[in-house]
Amino acid sequence: MTDHVTSMLKTYPKDLGGVDKEKLAACIAACFECAQTCTACADACLSEDMVAELAKCIRTNLDCADICATTGKILSRHTRYDANLTRTVLEACRTACQACADECNKHADMHEHCRICAEACRRCEQACADLIASLG
Amino acid sequence: MTDHVTSMLKTYPKDLGGVDKEKLAACIAACFECAQTCTACADACLSEDMVAELAKCIRTNLDCADICATTGKILSRHTRYDANLTRTVLEACRTACQACADECNKHADMHEHCRICAEACRRCEQACADLIASLG
Amino acid sequence: MTDHVTSMLKTYPKDLGGVDKEKLAACIAACFECAQTCTACADACLSEDMVAELAKCIRTNLDCADICATTGKILSRHTRYDANLTRTVLEACRTACQACADECNKHADMHEHCRICAEACRRCEQACADLIASLG
Amino acid sequence: MTDHVTSMLKTYPKDLGGVDKEKLAACIAACFECAQTCTACADACLSEDMVAELAKCIRTNLDCADICATTGKILSRHTRYDANLTRTVLEACRTACQACADECNKHADMHEHCRICAEACRRCEQACADLIASLG
Repeated sequence: MTDHVTSMLKTYPKDLGGVDKEKLAACIAACFECAQTCTACADACLSEDMVAELAKCIRTNLDCADICATTGKILSRHTRYDANLTRTVLEACRTACQACADECNKHADMHEHCRICAEACRRCEQACADLIASLG
Repeated sequence: MTDHVTSMLKTYPKDLGGVDKEKLAACIAACFECAQTCTACADACLSEDMVAELAKCIRTNLDCADICATTGKILSRHTRYDANLTRTVLEACRTACQACADECNKHADMHEHCRICAEACRRCEQACADLIASLG
Repeated sequence: MTDHVTSMLKTYPKDLGGVDKEKLAACIAACFECAQTCTACADACLSEDMVAELAKCIRTNLDCADICATTGKILSRHTRYDANLTRTVLEACRTACQACADECNKHADMHEHCRICAEACRRCEQACADLIASLG
Repeated sequence: MTDHVTSMLKTYPKDLGGVDKEKLAACIAACFECAQTCTACADACLSEDMVAELAKCIRTNLDCADICATTGKILSRHTRYDANLTRTVLEACRTACQACADECNKHADMHEHCRICAEACRRCEQACADLIASLG
């Protein structure tokens, strides 16, 4: 998805400031992909026979999907950029991705959807951390 | 909207822990109301003849609407509560509401939608701050 | 919540066309309230000991919450109104609310959150139907 | 993004029914990509000097982003699939994508973001139409 994001980023009509465009595009793509993966993982957990043992995983997936979708949208806006807001939203997203990766990882051996979802959350967590670091 | 939120809060089948139920319900309601108000204010700004001067206001409204909707949903979930995530999401929401209230306030004399929206953002900012404080 | 919605509706700077303002405000408020209630009901179901029997209810709640939130936002925008889009979105929302009310109703005797949620879905379904009818 | 979606689709623990998995994965990916592109296009329009002439484009972009995100999430859930709801949501999404593609296309010669966005909307409109057709 990074290619789609990058092609739009290049068309922004004003100056993007000192932002690292590669890290920004990677983070936006990771957020949207993680939102989709967490939505699908919550639903796959819901269809497992042992759903009662996956309640925490479903809850964490739903939160992570919501905050990733919001972060992906906020990062897709560049008009009158607010560094303070960007940073706190990225921190919330990183926290949610870390919690979801940790939780999904516990079920990764048993459920392939949790294994793939943990990877998507880890990638998004790292992309948020990289973007935060580049903001200076 | 607080009555609706409270009536659902009372039906939660497990222990809600030590959370202040009144502050939680007030914050959930404020988040959903602020999400609606910011969505409407962005659209009202877009229909103003002087829309070019309201670009920052529209952008701030859209971000605030997104993060308020996500915060309202995350706070509506109580299963396997994660204090760490709740706190960072509330901080992001408070930051967005403060930025949007400040921006809308600049246009409050000229645009009634900005005046009402600044009030909704201020209420939500305060509700987030109150809930954060009660989390200890 | 209808009061908040109505107060913003009155500030819209351009002509709202022939839309029934009362039905529009009622539908927007019902959508946001239903989105909150369905989010809370999905989470309450997830905490029930018999969660495995509530998988369909959770799924229906999540879909209904998503489509209600989107419908509430689209209805909150009046700039360059598109009757065709409004109608199809309202139809999708009515369908989701009907499905969720039907499903929650099956568990209403046993779970108070499902009883309250079925009522919220029924109100939103009716508000969508009323608004569609008023569109002519 | 289709690869990510497909890898999750393969892990779903129950039967997916007679759905065309390729068309489903393509539609989910198109919905998330279109949601991102429309969000970015609305913001790029907002930064154009001639923003007043792009008000309809911004509004259409915001609606399309919302309904695409919701459709992408609903299609990512397979538990207790509801053909009736899926169909009406896909119809709403197709309608929004068509409206947004038509509007963006009017500005495609002048604004590269509108040209790229029109293409993303057209792809998503087609993916929705293909999936609807495959539902029989």
